[in-house]
Amino acid sequence: MALVEELFPICRSITGNGVRETLETLRRFIPLEVNEVPSGTGVLDWTVPPEWNIRDAYILDPDGRRVVDFAANNLHIVQYSRPIDAMIPLGELRPHLHTLPDQPDWIPYRTSYYTENWGFCLTHRQLSSLADGPYRVVIDSDLGPGHLSYGELLIPGETDDTVLFSCHICHPSLANDNLSGIAVATMLACHLQTLRLRHSYRFLFIPGTIGSLTWLARNEDKVGRIVHGLVLSCLGDAGGMTYKQSRRGNAAIDRIVAHVLRNDEVPHRITPFVPYGYDERQYCSPGFDLPVGCLMRTPNGEYPEYHSSADNLSLLRPESLAHSLAVLRRIVAVIEGDAVCRSRNPKGEPQLGQRGLYETMGGQRAASYDQMALLWVLNLADGHHSLLDMAERAGVPFATIRAAADALVAAELLERMPAQR
Amino acid sequence: MALVEELFPICRSITGNGVRETLETLRRFIPLEVNEVPSGTGVLDWTVPPEWNIRDAYILDPDGRRVVDFAANNLHIVQYSRPIDAMIPLGELRPHLHTLPDQPDWIPYRTSYYTENWGFCLTHRQLSSLADGPYRVVIDSDLGPGHLSYGELLIPGETDDTVLFSCHICHPSLANDNLSGIAVATMLACHLQTLRLRHSYRFLFIPGTIGSLTWLARNEDKVGRIVHGLVLSCLGDAGGMTYKQSRRGNAAIDRIVAHVLRNDEVPHRITPFVPYGYDERQYCSPGFDLPVGCLMRTPNGEYPEYHSSADNLSLLRPESLAHSLAVLRRIVAVIEGDAVCRSRNPKGEPQLGQRGLYETMGGQRAASYDQMALLWVLNLADGHHSLLDMAERAGVPFATIRAAADALVAAELLERMPAQR
Amino acid sequence: MALVEELFPICRSITGNGVRETLETLRRFIPLEVNEVPSGTGVLDWTVPPEWNIRDAYILDPDGRRVVDFAANNLHIVQYSRPIDAMIPLGELRPHLHTLPDQPDWIPYRTSYYTENWGFCLTHRQLSSLADGPYRVVIDSDLGPGHLSYGELLIPGETDDTVLFSCHICHPSLANDNLSGIAVATMLACHLQTLRLRHSYRFLFIPGTIGSLTWLARNEDKVGRIVHGLVLSCLGDAGGMTYKQSRRGNAAIDRIVAHVLRNDEVPHRITPFVPYGYDERQYCSPGFDLPVGCLMRTPNGEYPEYHSSADNLSLLRPESLAHSLAVLRRIVAVIEGDAVCRSRNPKGEPQLGQRGLYETMGGQRAASYDQMALLWVLNLADGHHSLLDMAERAGVPFATIRAAADALVAAELLERMPAQR
Repeated sequence: MALVEELFPICRSITGNGVRETLETLRRFIPLEVNEVPSGTGVLDWTVPPEWNIRDAYILDPDGRRVVDFAANNLHIVQYSRPIDAMIPLGELRPHLHTLPDQPDWIPYRTSYYTENWGFCLTHRQLSSLADGPYRVVIDSDLGPGHLSYGELLIPGETDDTVLFSCHICHPSLANDNLSGIAVATMLACHLQTLRLRHSYRFLFIPGTIGSLTWLARNEDKVGRIVHGLVLSCLGDAGGMTYKQSRRGNAAIDRIVAHVLRNDEVPHRITPFVPYGYDERQYCSPGFDLPVGCLMRTPNGEYPEYHSSADNLSLLRPESLAHSLAVLRRIVAVIEGDAVCRSRNPKGEPQLGQRGLYETMGGQRAASYDQMALLWVLNLADGHHSLLDMAERAGVPFATIRAAADALVAAELLERMPAQR
Repeated sequence: MALVEELFPICRSITGNGVRETLETLRRFIPLEVNEVPSGTGVLDWTVPPEWNIRDAYILDPDGRRVVDFAANNLHIVQYSRPIDAMIPLGELRPHLHTLPDQPDWIPYRTSYYTENWGFCLTHRQLSSLADGPYRVVIDSDLGPGHLSYGELLIPGETDDTVLFSCHICHPSLANDNLSGIAVATMLACHLQTLRLRHSYRFLFIPGTIGSLTWLARNEDKVGRIVHGLVLSCLGDAGGMTYKQSRRGNAAIDRIVAHVLRNDEVPHRITPFVPYGYDERQYCSPGFDLPVGCLMRTPNGEYPEYHSSADNLSLLRPESLAHSLAVLRRIVAVIEGDAVCRSRNPKGEPQLGQRGLYETMGGQRAASYDQMALLWVLNLADGHHSLLDMAERAGVPFATIRAAADALVAAELLERMPAQR
Repeated sequence: MALVEELFPICRSITGNGVRETLETLRRFIPLEVNEVPSGTGVLDWTVPPEWNIRDAYILDPDGRRVVDFAANNLHIVQYSRPIDAMIPLGELRPHLHTLPDQPDWIPYRTSYYTENWGFCLTHRQLSSLADGPYRVVIDSDLGPGHLSYGELLIPGETDDTVLFSCHICHPSLANDNLSGIAVATMLACHLQTLRLRHSYRFLFIPGTIGSLTWLARNEDKVGRIVHGLVLSCLGDAGGMTYKQSRRGNAAIDRIVAHVLRNDEVPHRITPFVPYGYDERQYCSPGFDLPVGCLMRTPNGEYPEYHSSADNLSLLRPESLAHSLAVLRRIVAVIEGDAVCRSRNPKGEPQLGQRGLYETMGGQRAASYDQMALLWVLNLADGHHSLLDMAERAGVPFATIRAAADALVAAELLERMPAQR
């Protein structure tokens, strides 16, 4: 939460110094590599746009008062507004002013990345109070050749099989949509750096759309190694968890996340892939079709504060951020801990009692929870079921099955089979 | 509706002049080929029966009054009744009289095609008023060598892949069961003749059972070209649509009709195949197993007026006939318009904005309906999804996806793949 | 029921004379082969335990009264208790006394087969009345080298394809759990001996766990011939039927039992396999994975009287035993009667009327029940559907389809295809 609070005031966009400042802040926690890609670089069907930086922007009324002021809230400016300094009557200014009539006290968030334009966002109440003008409109911005910046961290594991975590870093002062994902991803990366890992983990902190396109264009050779992936966003609000499946719908990551959420105490939803949302749109485009889903609490567009000044720090719950992180750690625990096992004693049940793994007094009504996990693992350890398969069929959390499997390996009743791709 | 009204008084059966008159009437609309198959011709396990024609039939009471009179309603005669002229007491006549005790004012419809017999159908009220007699029974019919008549129309398309529409023409004055299907099929054929078509369309107007058996027996070489088919009946009543699946249950026609009905404003039901009903029984016999379903509103046997004098013109709704035709046209639109497409830009989303296919102001809550259709087509255009697949996955009507695909083809972002069988 | 009553007083265990006496009783009905396997014989991961026999056991209070007496109820002794004759104060005796605090008038059933121990089971009310003692504890038992006994009956059929029925015989005076299965299996075997059978039927009357392990270990060459199997238990209580599926979940026996139960008048449940319960645990261990389910009424552990003195004769219903037997006979009828058939007239429907298999008067609202069965068989007789497939798709009992198929074979319209494995 402290990291979210620190990042909140920075005016990020898809390029510019706000992104760089954000990445530098994250580098205090994790050794991010920062990449700079020049404007004009072709990336797939797109071109890296000019870099945009803004120093100040305001609208002065005829009395010289700042009726709209970028310094008060960086959502006041339409992202990528070109510089301007002009006197304009209200009628001419009007098409450049954006409000939310249904939420008259909130400032909307608007962008115009790929069509040169300028504009201001303000509350509908502000707009209603404006007289005819004329108004002096000042936008002190730079829009020209520069770079697109993004951060990347690879935590290498025993194999090249890579798990991708991607979050966007292009939103200005929006808390749930953007900063929650950035903060949780950073803390997850901190945690993973302390572990011995079978998989490699790649974290991307990128501007939305153009950032994932840029990474994909520059790293086609690495794409094939991605065996699981998650886009992270909206992870700090009070809602339950939402998992949006990968395009495939039946990828391993889809099963893993569903299993973890089903065995969690918090309500959850699983929604099918749709080609709209965050960067899963790019990862799941047909030419890549990566096994990448999107983990959120309340999804983009489904909470009223979305893309407005109301998506601020007061929308976030520290316990939600912590719970989102815990869910991600459990997802990683399944990714790391799953395996196909084979019983060394497949004909009939082995005699667990003589190995201290079974109650000695018979006739009780039912087997205990852990006892059942042992029996499930032994019964399904035919070389065709993974531990996750067993957990699903037994209806118990992965961790319970994993613990039973570990006990059976220790008793030399079970052996792990070599991983297969 | 006018066509139904014109055809209603004709006394049709599985053979005879009523069938010929009906086919001649249809020839005013479509260039039907009329086939005549001699009695005694072997068709599969069956034999074309004698031809039956009837001029008059009545029962005279002792006072010489016509208590039952074919001239009043051609349902009064059991179809295929042999000629007779005899004086009979009521006790002997009784087994030859058929009524509907539960519907005392309706005349039932009965046939005895393949067992020589004679009989009258009358209202239960009429029967109850009959005294002991004796009665003079007169049936002035011919039952002897002749022909079975049926009509056929082939509308050729670019390929030999054939779509079959079949309806029965063997019922006398019954409106929903028989005439509604005949009229809608005729109007559909009129419409298709005006189009440029990828598929060929074959329309059959045939007597039930023996007609489809006859066509199948004489056209085994054409059967393999039938890629989709529908039997049409009961298309004029006030009920919602019913689609009875083909024997396969997962044929393309089953998906297509289900899609069209699901995206229609009128309630519908999909029912599995059962080997009873109309000529789908023959088309779906195991030796042919054609992809032929049956489209109806309220199915045979499920409306009280079925096979009685109450299935008359007052049961029909002109708007139901028009809606049934509209549904069939939409089914044909899917059959004709479906295709497998491939994105020419499959890696990442193409930049739709620069092609005028995307809103330029970003940050809105959700994509528009048509925008989503564009994104779905691009996302699924991997050469493995048909446009119908896309419509189903996107949950939108086929026409919406088709329009999006056309826009993307025009923008050179999409290409149609050659059709595969 | 008379057989259950006769067997009820015998003190059975996993070995010993109670088992032998039980098997001898069954031999009055069916020619069981009794096998004796020496203690110490290795069977898979297990070893045949010592043989246990008990003559008497009691606890004397300081006044010399038998406060717990094996002669009153053979559940009073923990199975496999070693001999003892000692004076013990209550505090030391207490860990050897087992009760059901929630059911203070019932005696629990407890065993300690594989860990040498001794103990008594008593009602909680008895325990509460015990003073400090000291008590004289006497167990007059033998626990030493001997044999494990089990009974086996093979009823040979035309083929070696074998159907296994297995029930446990190791419980002392428990009626539903144990004796109901024994009695129903015995009566089923009596019935099958009177029939000409396509399959061979193997009945096992064995001590739980160690008995099935012993049979499997000694008969690995016969295991592959088992094409269907059922463990039988708890078949006499007033509850509906429960079928626990085989580990495979989609074995033929799973479909067959589900079909029979679905077409039965008594409520039923189908539950998935879990690796706990009766000997299906061993038959379904991954090294064998036999198609063996478990047929019960109220399952083990789900009725309150389970494994207590309340599972006595008063819990059983003669009509439940009879119904369980009837269900098993219907299951056998499907196993024996199923076949894949092929129409000799697959193109179009054959003309049933001329063969006396169809109503001659047409126009009725719907086909009769038996008529529909004829049509279903003809429609699905493509060489790919079994009669059971047809019954499932038609939604009618197997017997109805079988009768229709027999009529069609008699009319030379259908032929049975040779059985395939």
